[in-house]
Amino acid sequence: MENGSTKKKKWAFQGNPELNTASEITIRAVLAMLKTHLNQSDSRPVIPLGHGDPSSFSCFRTSPIAEDAIANALRSAKFTGYSPTVGVLPARRAVAEYLSQDLPNRISPDDVFLTVGCTQAIQTIITVLADSKANILLPKPGYPYYEAFAQSCHLEVRHFDLLPDKDWEVDLVAVEALADENTAAMVIINPGNPCGNVFTFQHLQKVAETARKLGILVIADEVYGHIAFGKNPFVPMGVFGSITPVITLGSISKRWIVPGWRLGWLIINDPNGVLKKHRIIECITQYLNISSDPPTFIQGAVPDILGKTKEDFFLKIINTIKEAANSCYEGIQDIPGVICPSEPEGSMFVMVKLDLSILENIKDDLDFCVKLAKEESIIILPGISVGLKNWLRLTFAIEPSSLEDGIKRIKAFCRRHSKKA
Amino acid sequence: MENGSTKKKKWAFQGNPELNTASEITIRAVLAMLKTHLNQSDSRPVIPLGHGDPSSFSCFRTSPIAEDAIANALRSAKFTGYSPTVGVLPARRAVAEYLSQDLPNRISPDDVFLTVGCTQAIQTIITVLADSKANILLPKPGYPYYEAFAQSCHLEVRHFDLLPDKDWEVDLVAVEALADENTAAMVIINPGNPCGNVFTFQHLQKVAETARKLGILVIADEVYGHIAFGKNPFVPMGVFGSITPVITLGSISKRWIVPGWRLGWLIINDPNGVLKKHRIIECITQYLNISSDPPTFIQGAVPDILGKTKEDFFLKIINTIKEAANSCYEGIQDIPGVICPSEPEGSMFVMVKLDLSILENIKDDLDFCVKLAKEESIIILPGISVGLKNWLRLTFAIEPSSLEDGIKRIKAFCRRHSKKA
Repeated sequence: MENGSTKKKKWAFQGNPELNTASEITIRAVLAMLKTHLNQSDSRPVIPLGHGDPSSFSCFRTSPIAEDAIANALRSAKFTGYSPTVGVLPARRAVAEYLSQDLPNRISPDDVFLTVGCTQAIQTIITVLADSKANILLPKPGYPYYEAFAQSCHLEVRHFDLLPDKDWEVDLVAVEALADENTAAMVIINPGNPCGNVFTFQHLQKVAETARKLGILVIADEVYGHIAFGKNPFVPMGVFGSITPVITLGSISKRWIVPGWRLGWLIINDPNGVLKKHRIIECITQYLNISSDPPTFIQGAVPDILGKTKEDFFLKIINTIKEAANSCYEGIQDIPGVICPSEPEGSMFVMVKLDLSILENIKDDLDFCVKLAKEESIIILPGISVGLKNWLRLTFAIEPSSLEDGIKRIKAFCRRHSKKA
Repeated sequence: MENGSTKKKKWAFQGNPELNTASEITIRAVLAMLKTHLNQSDSRPVIPLGHGDPSSFSCFRTSPIAEDAIANALRSAKFTGYSPTVGVLPARRAVAEYLSQDLPNRISPDDVFLTVGCTQAIQTIITVLADSKANILLPKPGYPYYEAFAQSCHLEVRHFDLLPDKDWEVDLVAVEALADENTAAMVIINPGNPCGNVFTFQHLQKVAETARKLGILVIADEVYGHIAFGKNPFVPMGVFGSITPVITLGSISKRWIVPGWRLGWLIINDPNGVLKKHRIIECITQYLNISSDPPTFIQGAVPDILGKTKEDFFLKIINTIKEAANSCYEGIQDIPGVICPSEPEGSMFVMVKLDLSILENIKDDLDFCVKLAKEESIIILPGISVGLKNWLRLTFAIEPSSLEDGIKRIKAFCRRHSKKA
C-alpha cells in the first residue's frame, strides 16, 4: 500500500546507521540474543548468570529503610515537580557527605551531579569529552557501554589490557604507549567489572601518577564501590584527585541492590580546580541541561537512603556475596575446560577462560554460551562482549541454591562436551 | 600549582564545544539566568510564570491514586531490578490501552516505548533521525529542546511558522516550501506549547496529507494531551497514522501534574508498517539499548495510574486550568504594551506580543523579562527562547491568587514603563 500509488513520494527518512553498531556491543543486546536460544521445553528454571542484578532474589532484598525513604519523599508532595539540572540540593549534599567519609579532601555539594543511574553518568562524561580529535583509553576487558556511547558520539577509543596474571591490574606501560596529545582520559572500573578484582592503594596511586604524566583525567567507575570482600579494601580513586583530576561515577544500584531505581552520580574530585579551568564542569552542566533527570522524589529520598541505612544491611549483603563468590570459585575448579586465574574479591563477577583444546564441538565463547543456553537453560555472558574472546563473565550474585544448580549444570555441559581421551 | 612544574605535561582535555550552544537555547538555561536578576531584598514572593510545573501548588496536587500506585509497586519488590530496554510489558500494555481509546486503529504494546519523561522521547527520535544529510522541520514558536537536541547531534533544523492570526495553525505552504529530499520529519506540538492553542481535526488531517505528499513522518508532541478546555476537543495525531506515519510523544507529567516523576513514552502510529520497513523502529530500540530507563517501580505503577485515576480528578484539574486561563487572558487585556492575539484553549501557556512602541526603556523581550524579574519578582519566559522575538510566554497554571497577584504586578510594571503621552 504505502508506495502503491505511482504519484506518491517515496519516504525520505531512515534510521541513524551508527546506532546499529553502538547498540550491538551492549550487554543487553547480547543477553537478549542468548535468550532466544533457550529451550522452551526444558522444565528447569533458567539460571541468570549473565548480568549483575540480584534484586529478584529474596536474600538480596533491599533495606526497608531505603523503601521507606522513597515512599516518604513521594508522599511529602515536596518532590513532585521538575528538579534542577544538576539534582536537588539536599540529595547533592547527602552524596557529598557520604563520599567524603573516605576521602582526604571533603567534596562539596557543587561537586555532585545526580544522574539517571550510572548509565547516564557514563553518557554525560563521554559526551562532554567527545570533540572531533579526542580519544579515550578504556580497559580490556571492560564494560561495553563505554564503547557504545563513545561510538555513538564519535569519540575514538583505544584499549589497554588488564593483566589476568597480576590480579587484573592495569597495564600501565600500555597506557603510556597508547596515549598521545589528543588523549583526554582513561577509565578504570573498581571494584572490577568484569574481573571481580579490587585495586590496591599502591596501584591506584600509580594509575594517578601515570595519568598526571600524560596530562589526562581518570574516570573512576565505582558503581560497585564498597562491594569488596577479599584481601584489598575498597579505596576510592578520588583519594588521588590532587595528583590528577578524577571524575567518579557511582550509584545506589549495587550496594543497596536497587538497580531499577536509577539513581546515580558523577563526582568531581579535583582540589586543584583543573576541570573547572578546562570548562569540563560547565560542559557537564550543559549536557545535563539537555537531558532527563532522575525522578525528583527519588532524589528527595537520597538523604535518608545514604544516612539511615544500617551497617547490618551492608554486612549481610557483603557476606552473602562473599559466600557466593567462594562457592562459585570452588565449583569452577572442578569443571573441565574452564580456568579461573584468580579468586574474585569484589563486584559481582568473575572472568573464566575457556580451554577450547579440551572441549569438543565448541567453536568459541559465543558458541559455548549459545549451546549452554540451549542445553542447560543457563545465561552466561561471552567474554567477547567485554573484550576478551574465549573467556566468560559469570555473576555469582544470585540465590545460593540457584548458583549451586548453575555450577552443576555447567559442569555437566563441559563434561558432555569434553574431548574423549 | 597545576602546571607549576615545567616538566609536567599540559592537560589534554577540553569540554565538547557543541554542548555550549545546545544548552544555551534551553528554557532551563534562560530561566536560571533570569533568576540571577531577582531582587533579594524584595519581600514579596517570586511569581513563577516561566515554566509549566504547577505541582508545587496545593490546588494542583496529583491524585492519591497515582501516589498509591507508585508506593504499591515500590513495596511489591517486583520492580526493583533492571527493566527491559523498551519498558516492562504491563506498563506498555497499559499505555497502549489508554491511548487506543481515542484511536481508530488499536495500538499494540509493541508500539509503545517507555522513556525518562517526554524529554528522553524527544532525544530518542531526534537521535534516530540524525544522519549526516537529514533535516527536520520544527514549529516557530516551539519548544527549544528540539533545537537543542538536534544541534547536539548535528541534525539540520528548518523552521515553519505557526500563524498567530489563524489560531496558531501550521503554515503548511511554508512546510511545503521548506522540505526537500532530505527532510525526514516535521514536529507539531498539540495542545500547543508555547501558544496554548488546540488544532482542529481538519487542520491535523491537512498536516498529515501534507506530510504524506512530502514523504515525511509527523512527530506529534502530545505531552499536553487532553489539557484542552476551549472550542476544539483534543484530537491525537495518531488518528491520521494511516495517511502518514506518526510518532507520538507523551507522558504522565502534565495530565497527572507529576513532571518530576519522569515517565514518558514514544508511540508508533503506523498501521501501514512504513517505519518498520525503514528501520526506524529497530533504531529506536538500539538507542534505548544505550540509554537509561525510567525507574522500574514507576513503570510498574503505570497500569494503576492510567487505569484507576478517576475522571473527577481530571475534571477538577481542567477546570482549575481553564479558570486560570480565562482570568489570565482577561487580566492581560488591561495591560498597556502587551497584546494577546487569541485566548488560550489548551496546554498551560499563552503567547503575548509586546508593543515596544509604547514602552519606555525596554529594548526587547529579554530586557523586559530581566527588568520584570528585578523590579517585580516575576519570572516570565522571553519569546526569543521559543523562537519569537518581542513576545512573551506566560504560564497560567499556578495558584489563582498568585496568578492574580502576578497580573497586577505586570500591569504596574507596564504602566510604570509606558511612554508618557
